[in-house]
Amino acid sequence: MKTSLGAKTLVFPVPVWIIGTYDNDGKPNVMAASWGGVCCSEPPCVTVSLRKATYTYGCLMERKAYTVSIPSEKHSREADYFGMASGRDTDKFTDTGLTPVRSELVDAPYVGEFSHILECKVIHIHEIGLHTQFIGQIMDVKMDEEMLDANGKPEVLKVKPFIFAPGIHEYYGLGNPLGRGYKLGKGLKK
Amino acid sequence: MKTSLGAKTLVFPVPVWIIGTYDNDGKPNVMAASWGGVCCSEPPCVTVSLRKATYTYGCLMERKAYTVSIPSEKHSREADYFGMASGRDTDKFTDTGLTPVRSELVDAPYVGEFSHILECKVIHIHEIGLHTQFIGQIMDVKMDEEMLDANGKPEVLKVKPFIFAPGIHEYYGLGNPLGRGYKLGKGLKK
Repeated sequence: MKTSLGAKTLVFPVPVWIIGTYDNDGKPNVMAASWGGVCCSEPPCVTVSLRKATYTYGCLMERKAYTVSIPSEKHSREADYFGMASGRDTDKFTDTGLTPVRSELVDAPYVGEFSHILECKVIHIHEIGLHTQFIGQIMDVKMDEEMLDANGKPEVLKVKPFIFAPGIHEYYGLGNPLGRGYKLGKGLKK
Repeated sequence: MKTSLGAKTLVFPVPVWIIGTYDNDGKPNVMAASWGGVCCSEPPCVTVSLRKATYTYGCLMERKAYTVSIPSEKHSREADYFGMASGRDTDKFTDTGLTPVRSELVDAPYVGEFSHILECKVIHIHEIGLHTQFIGQIMDVKMDEEMLDANGKPEVLKVKPFIFAPGIHEYYGLGNPLGRGYKLGKGLKK
């Protein structure tokens, strides 16, 4: 029996991504965002949605570039902090001891200690409501070499990305592999 | 040491969502989509991006409504199948033995056996490139009652949503809770 929980963003799973930008003075800033995802394969694009009140919103409108630093489980505490504090009031890199690294491809910094990085140029901005959606073209994906297997493929259980569960405000790590895409369901094909 | 993996949608984690639509003849159809996410809190919206070649694209353009049925681990096989077959060639509900249920709120069907459902009206359509982005306003969230705790909050480890890892094409379940959002990082606040 299904029950109605109302019109709300009670949606599983959503990612935990750290959005890196420079402000007007060139100060690197980061914030945590879970309203985002991949939105196109060609050009390869991700989207992230921000409230106008965030410090990152102004940085993005100015610089039209951002990075996505994907945190591992071991940085879940810092990631959560990046979603609590504002770059208006503090330097979140200093607070956490993490290192801003200037992207060579886009006008934005990423978190040096995080193993999985996307470098993005803003190609569309969509007003939706409380949130504004920034479509970022992925100019490159970078990963720590030790996260790759012998064939150069990422080992997800080493990268250890984690998810957020809105509504109950809990983070979860990844569990067991369930099977291969475009293979697991093959037996059902008539 | 970071290495470049190129400009591609090698992004973790992405969701596995089943998009439900009716076609022109009123036949219910479902497809798996991982290019999507939440994109606004008010109005509450999710986004899903589809290639024009998909059967669902035409249904969405016609009906301007869709559901998101969030599969549990136990339905990972069916979810993968929904991403392999096309509604042009087959009836995926018949193939899998799952039940299309007509939403009372939007002109779209959802998967009756899946425990977590979003009912969405398309409010914006954005051309990005190979993919077209459909912004859906969430009209209601429905969940099986047995997924809720005594306070009416979802128990994520019962819902058991899972994620997809592009690039390596593997599905992963959820693991352990890592901590509460807006709490875990509190110690870092200066």
